[in-house]
Amino acid sequence: MIIVQKFGGTSVGDISRIKNVAKKVKAELDKKNKVIVVVSAMSGVTNQLVDYCNQVSSLTEDISLSEYDSVIATGEQVTCGLLALELQSIGYKARSLLGWQISIKTDSIHSKARIDSIDGDYLLGLLNEFDVIVIAGFQGIHEESNRITTLGRGGSDTSAVAIAAAVKADLCDIYTDVSGVYTTDPRITDKARRLKKVTYEEMLEMAYSGSKVLQTRSVAMAMAHNVRVRVLSTFEEVNENSGTVLVNNNEEIMERRLITGISYSKNDVRITLANMPDHPGLSATIFGALAQKEVNVDMIVQNISSSGKFIDITFTAGVDELERAKLAIESIKDEVKYSELKIDGNIAKISVIGVGMISHSGVAHTMFKTLAEKGINLLLISTSEIKISVLIEKEYGELAVRILHDAYGLGKK
Amino acid sequence: MIIVQKFGGTSVGDISRIKNVAKKVKAELDKKNKVIVVVSAMSGVTNQLVDYCNQVSSLTEDISLSEYDSVIATGEQVTCGLLALELQSIGYKARSLLGWQISIKTDSIHSKARIDSIDGDYLLGLLNEFDVIVIAGFQGIHEESNRITTLGRGGSDTSAVAIAAAVKADLCDIYTDVSGVYTTDPRITDKARRLKKVTYEEMLEMAYSGSKVLQTRSVAMAMAHNVRVRVLSTFEEVNENSGTVLVNNNEEIMERRLITGISYSKNDVRITLANMPDHPGLSATIFGALAQKEVNVDMIVQNISSSGKFIDITFTAGVDELERAKLAIESIKDEVKYSELKIDGNIAKISVIGVGMISHSGVAHTMFKTLAEKGINLLLISTSEIKISVLIEKEYGELAVRILHDAYGLGKK
Repeated sequence: MIIVQKFGGTSVGDISRIKNVAKKVKAELDKKNKVIVVVSAMSGVTNQLVDYCNQVSSLTEDISLSEYDSVIATGEQVTCGLLALELQSIGYKARSLLGWQISIKTDSIHSKARIDSIDGDYLLGLLNEFDVIVIAGFQGIHEESNRITTLGRGGSDTSAVAIAAAVKADLCDIYTDVSGVYTTDPRITDKARRLKKVTYEEMLEMAYSGSKVLQTRSVAMAMAHNVRVRVLSTFEEVNENSGTVLVNNNEEIMERRLITGISYSKNDVRITLANMPDHPGLSATIFGALAQKEVNVDMIVQNISSSGKFIDITFTAGVDELERAKLAIESIKDEVKYSELKIDGNIAKISVIGVGMISHSGVAHTMFKTLAEKGINLLLISTSEIKISVLIEKEYGELAVRILHDAYGLGKK
Repeated sequence: MIIVQKFGGTSVGDISRIKNVAKKVKAELDKKNKVIVVVSAMSGVTNQLVDYCNQVSSLTEDISLSEYDSVIATGEQVTCGLLALELQSIGYKARSLLGWQISIKTDSIHSKARIDSIDGDYLLGLLNEFDVIVIAGFQGIHEESNRITTLGRGGSDTSAVAIAAAVKADLCDIYTDVSGVYTTDPRITDKARRLKKVTYEEMLEMAYSGSKVLQTRSVAMAMAHNVRVRVLSTFEEVNENSGTVLVNNNEEIMERRLITGISYSKNDVRITLANMPDHPGLSATIFGALAQKEVNVDMIVQNISSSGKFIDITFTAGVDELERAKLAIESIKDEVKYSELKIDGNIAKISVIGVGMISHSGVAHTMFKTLAEKGINLLLISTSEIKISVLIEKEYGELAVRILHDAYGLGKK
């Protein structure tokens, strides 16, 4: 078997943890597997490097971002060298590889580059020469400019999945500081249960609606290339039942369940542009300006006044995108002529997710009824085929998660 | 003019110092010079990275050293990116370059690689495109293995001089935390005077005998390629009279002086192999073993017993090479049959240096007489064309420097 193992920043947070990671690698090597390891920077290191960059530059210009990438890519360079050293010292033929050495070719969008290609044959060749190769996650190279790029949020997970796809790995193990994907955040209810399997689609919706276990882009890449991804804890013994495996919708999950999990986010902000004179193209203007500033808009609702002449548009976005959203709205102020801009950060988003809900109509009803019984108001509602999200007041967030978790019978048996 | 500016670890020790370095660069750009900057890692960073490596590996195997290099090369990668960002933020078109991007081709001797070639035309092309380019010192690439190499001690100075040679720079300014090269260490006597000019040969001898301003290999490279090197302080205003310029022996220093300076080292250790049966090839065996363990032997004396049958060999080496020296001697113990191995770290080496002494015989006499008058015993003596070194007891070190500095009239006028 060829196995890709990915270890995040907490897993390689100090030298003793890097030694622990080497043991996880050894366990797979002992089973005669060929192993490719992908590592993040030691936790805290990337933040320190970003902080350095922010101290010298506003990072607004394109050219600056290439320097930013060159600086912050060093975090992974350090960990992959150290892990290779540790693997050598316990007797394995190991070597590290940086993004430009492989090469992991990306586009030129520094600080959030997309992977174009990885030479899987080159990596497979190295796997004949070495017991294990250790690859710096989060980084690639833009070939034309010969410059280091970084992949942005969730970049190391994406590196691991892309590498697994390139070498047609049998398994891509993502080691984190949690034991897998849960029906909901175990810090909110101790009834939360680890899911043995979850579909790519469900994982995508969970990631998108607040679960921090995997980033959406790595899940999307796994789905696109059919990479078998398993989410595991670095700090536990691994066996066949460990973790959560991402699988296709139409296979493997024999006993279908209605609802898979409840996601929760309190990092959103609700923005309302009130009393705009309605005209064709109004929404296009607003969301075009937001897209240009790279604001990821989530839930959207529009209300038309009784006269039909005025319109309110409300949407949510990540709280860390608020400044960019304000800039975007400011830039179209004269065009859309809103009378008031309302910003509300006192909200929580609760999402109920499950591929089973496609064929069941009662899911939304259960959700709304359960919340209403506790007097929780719904500020916004949005739905997809396999997800229903509601926005509520922040203070009810944890309560809502717990009662919905019970209502859908997600708890441990 | 094309100017190479090199800034050491103290000069780029934190963000405010990196901003200060940008001002030094700006000063040259304002004069319409083309500037290439070479930077070290922020002070302390390389030590931290080396410490990480030592925690995971003994660094004894060759293959480990390539990982070690990949890890510690990140220090310079961070500073050169940050300086490029800072230069951009004050309005210049700047970019950073890493060893593999240039490329600075080296041999494969990881952790102390030698530079084979640098594509000067490529750098000159970039100087047409950018106002200033910032290069990571201390690093290169071994082309065949496509791996990062580091240059070892004094590596960044060597990078700067090699780059200056490759682009035929008019000047290579080495910025340090001292104002230039002094007649002796200003911390030992306040009479020490900055030298405006010093020959390559003198600088070589000074570096070799304890002056820490420049490493021997960068001076040797400057001499070989006739690079005009100037040593300056990062923390002072620069003008035409600043610093110390390295020049050829046969030019520029109009008013010849007899003695240029007094160097001083207390980081040596004296090792004696006593009472060995004399036989042809004995010295070759000893110094061969030491060379194999890469011990840099400095002063050597051998004493033959009155019978002519037994021999003592005494030499000095850097105190940080003592462990390797012991291993080397242990490996030939049965062959050379010494009766005793004496190790003495209680020593100081004082060197009197000057190209003028070639034509003056009284220099040694003045040295010995001056030391004798203060009751300072000479434990070892060695000489070159332009240097006389003596080994004395450590406690007399500073005193010896001061009285010799006076005796040769080196003080300020």
